[in-house]
Amino acid sequence: MMLTLEQLAQQCDAEIPANQSSVKINAAADIMIATSNQVTVLSSRKYLKYLTDTQASACFVNRDMCIEEAPENLVFLYCKDPEISFLNAVHALHPRVEYNRSISKQSVIAENVTMGKNINIGAFSTIEQNSKIGDDTEIYASVNIGRNVSIGKNCTLYPNVVIYDNTVIGSNVTIHSGAIIAADGFGYKYRNNEHLKVPHVGNVLIADNVEIGANTCIDRGALGSTTIGAGSKIDNLVQLGHNNQVGRNVIICGQSGVSGSCTIGDGVVLAGGSAIADHVNIGQQAVIMARSGVAGDIEAGSQVFGLPAKDKKVVWRELAALSKLPQLFKKFKVLENRISKLER
Amino acid sequence: MMLTLEQLAQQCDAEIPANQSSVKINAAADIMIATSNQVTVLSSRKYLKYLTDTQASACFVNRDMCIEEAPENLVFLYCKDPEISFLNAVHALHPRVEYNRSISKQSVIAENVTMGKNINIGAFSTIEQNSKIGDDTEIYASVNIGRNVSIGKNCTLYPNVVIYDNTVIGSNVTIHSGAIIAADGFGYKYRNNEHLKVPHVGNVLIADNVEIGANTCIDRGALGSTTIGAGSKIDNLVQLGHNNQVGRNVIICGQSGVSGSCTIGDGVVLAGGSAIADHVNIGQQAVIMARSGVAGDIEAGSQVFGLPAKDKKVVWRELAALSKLPQLFKKFKVLENRISKLER
Amino acid sequence: MMLTLEQLAQQCDAEIPANQSSVKINAAADIMIATSNQVTVLSSRKYLKYLTDTQASACFVNRDMCIEEAPENLVFLYCKDPEISFLNAVHALHPRVEYNRSISKQSVIAENVTMGKNINIGAFSTIEQNSKIGDDTEIYASVNIGRNVSIGKNCTLYPNVVIYDNTVIGSNVTIHSGAIIAADGFGYKYRNNEHLKVPHVGNVLIADNVEIGANTCIDRGALGSTTIGAGSKIDNLVQLGHNNQVGRNVIICGQSGVSGSCTIGDGVVLAGGSAIADHVNIGQQAVIMARSGVAGDIEAGSQVFGLPAKDKKVVWRELAALSKLPQLFKKFKVLENRISKLER
Repeated sequence: MMLTLEQLAQQCDAEIPANQSSVKINAAADIMIATSNQVTVLSSRKYLKYLTDTQASACFVNRDMCIEEAPENLVFLYCKDPEISFLNAVHALHPRVEYNRSISKQSVIAENVTMGKNINIGAFSTIEQNSKIGDDTEIYASVNIGRNVSIGKNCTLYPNVVIYDNTVIGSNVTIHSGAIIAADGFGYKYRNNEHLKVPHVGNVLIADNVEIGANTCIDRGALGSTTIGAGSKIDNLVQLGHNNQVGRNVIICGQSGVSGSCTIGDGVVLAGGSAIADHVNIGQQAVIMARSGVAGDIEAGSQVFGLPAKDKKVVWRELAALSKLPQLFKKFKVLENRISKLER
Repeated sequence: MMLTLEQLAQQCDAEIPANQSSVKINAAADIMIATSNQVTVLSSRKYLKYLTDTQASACFVNRDMCIEEAPENLVFLYCKDPEISFLNAVHALHPRVEYNRSISKQSVIAENVTMGKNINIGAFSTIEQNSKIGDDTEIYASVNIGRNVSIGKNCTLYPNVVIYDNTVIGSNVTIHSGAIIAADGFGYKYRNNEHLKVPHVGNVLIADNVEIGANTCIDRGALGSTTIGAGSKIDNLVQLGHNNQVGRNVIICGQSGVSGSCTIGDGVVLAGGSAIADHVNIGQQAVIMARSGVAGDIEAGSQVFGLPAKDKKVVWRELAALSKLPQLFKKFKVLENRISKLER
Repeated sequence: MMLTLEQLAQQCDAEIPANQSSVKINAAADIMIATSNQVTVLSSRKYLKYLTDTQASACFVNRDMCIEEAPENLVFLYCKDPEISFLNAVHALHPRVEYNRSISKQSVIAENVTMGKNINIGAFSTIEQNSKIGDDTEIYASVNIGRNVSIGKNCTLYPNVVIYDNTVIGSNVTIHSGAIIAADGFGYKYRNNEHLKVPHVGNVLIADNVEIGANTCIDRGALGSTTIGAGSKIDNLVQLGHNNQVGRNVIICGQSGVSGSCTIGDGVVLAGGSAIADHVNIGQQAVIMARSGVAGDIEAGSQVFGLPAKDKKVVWRELAALSKLPQLFKKFKVLENRISKLER
């Protein structure tokens, strides 16, 4: 999409010098690689070094950013929140291509499925009995939706998503390919040399505005529900076990795992590859740092690291001490000798 | 499903007071949230605190459990093994809905596939040449079964399972959505600036009563077989590499990984996110604790933790010492000063 | 496939005693389990102990290997590189079965898709508008290929692979089942109590001779491309985030994760379950050891371990010291007492 700087400034809440309003922009790009007729963004002083040589035609920047040197041809788009203005510029310059929606004749939809308006169902998708699809929801090819599933409005399910029976999904939810929602949780009782399966008759509830990454698994509750709160975002290859209660606006990064029956407070961040043992409560806004393994409750607002995870400052102090430990052993020997000498 | 307490007691091997036999129960629920006409379970003293206020109408309990105070309306179902009685109650009250089985006209099944009785094949599933499906096996939609695959009786394959060629699966095996059985193992030889692929002409053997979680991957053997012993249970997003020999009744929790050519003894537990290096033997009944990384053989019955994993008591002692290490450095300084003083 | 030793020697660049040329070989097997009419390999002295009792009829070995005792009936195939000769023997004895290729009538291919010669498209696969499939490429069942996707020659896409729009794939690329290529990266800006999605309008570029494992996820770039260099091999359940630049001949083992915007140099090895934080550079030929978590740049050729990962020798020294730390506390007490005595 080609836009003039004037159009871009308008759409992205920015100001430009009037004499530059007709400059043409056709793409958004990172500051290191942007070229002519592209717009970029300078959101942090650490990228200032790239400004001098950028080939971009325009750059979103906050007026408070102190800029000493910039290419002559570069036009600044002054704005309050350069990151968000740039994000809107990406939307405006690279609009999502909309295709005609239809119900593929090669899909299999049970007779009593309730279908809203303006829905897309891709080829080779199946929807079982008593399920319900809201208006404007787009289901790609090869998606399998079980029985008694409810999906809200304006959702997107990419190819190969599987939704087991009785799942309830809100509106504006995006689920990426290969995600498996509401498979049985992992629970057994060992008796007489055999693992007896704990039946899983619960379900999964996903609130509005949730995004779920590719190949992520969210298990159904054993008796009740596994729930994901509104606005939470879950990355790829994440494992969420049975009966977890995930709050609102939670961020769960790739390859993280939450065992089961945990409570994850609103606004919590699970950084990449972190993991939570079962029956653990994570307080609101807590940050579980990358690759950490949490074994017990975590206080709201705290930042923890390590295995088992502890307050990050405590862990860093321990790791700093550990790095000097081999040396300490040598110093200890010296001390012993000095004492032996004194004792003689 | 609605059952009287009498029926429930009978089906779940429990005893009730005769005058309560007509109380109606329609669901099973956890003790914290159970309401009227629901049955719950008290399997451990740590949940006793929830008993006083429970709204449940009935509760499985062992006669030996000492209970001081309970709601007046609560009926106890006395039994030897409350966990198992409750598990059976869940089955009885929430029976799996059985649907008519059929071979979907939208599936593609090679001509020489051998099919047992009472099989279900879902829409858009494919079964290639020379494969064999046992009686009562249920294959959901969009399952892909390769050539020369043998699947036993009474198995369940959920949507989007992929079984590569030559896999052999026993009876009563459940495989959840997105699991990939018998893809090539990861093996290369580096020569002349190129990674040459080691051909994988082996297969995967899965014994009876195995359950495999969503999006789990089990690679084929390079020349021989990767095997999973009877009764073993594997959670979601687990990676089992080529040539592993997994014993009977092994538990492998979510996101664990076993590199290749390992032997995992009967009854071993790999807790969540644990990992085993290649060519390692894990002795029977050993427990690999959560997030541990095992680099060498582990003795039967041992419990190991950490990276690299060691006896858990040793590791805990080390971690306790580490937590006091920053303090030790300070004390060490004090000692040095005291010695310097003595030396003067 | 049955071959005489003479044929095998010829095809695998090995020499045999002339009088043994007619011995028949019908399979390749590991030295521990090989039986009559099978060929095995002795590539390292550590397997010498298995040679004495092997039932194999033939064994690839380097002439420099000093062998003192071997079964009378065992014929040696002398060669320069036993591993590669054996690898070729596996190919020769267990050739991949070739099936007739066809475009399934149960696939859905958009009208303007460009199709090369000798292509296979399995049942229930979909190919969207403007995509292009090169000669000799084999697409299995239930593969979903988006819009404007380009796939080179002689590629193999196993069942249930999903390729999002605009992906570019070279030639001789193998992608295993359940792999998801070019789903959106994980990026949000938090404003007004809401995580705003960073639009992902970039793509994924995969060069020639790449292999990608089952259920692995490679996210598209936000604005530019996520790239995988020629000859790189990626195992199962790997997560590669947006904007990563992976070099040539890189090895990424199972369950590893690379956050985003990282540069992974040529020949780097990410061992099993390792992880890289975002915006990190990994120098050429560096080895990230199993389960390590890398938080900062890594020099070319270095080998790092731990969380956060450091030079492996440094870490081993620290771990060795840590294992003696509980003891040090005791010794420290003794020293304190000796000093107190001196002070009295």
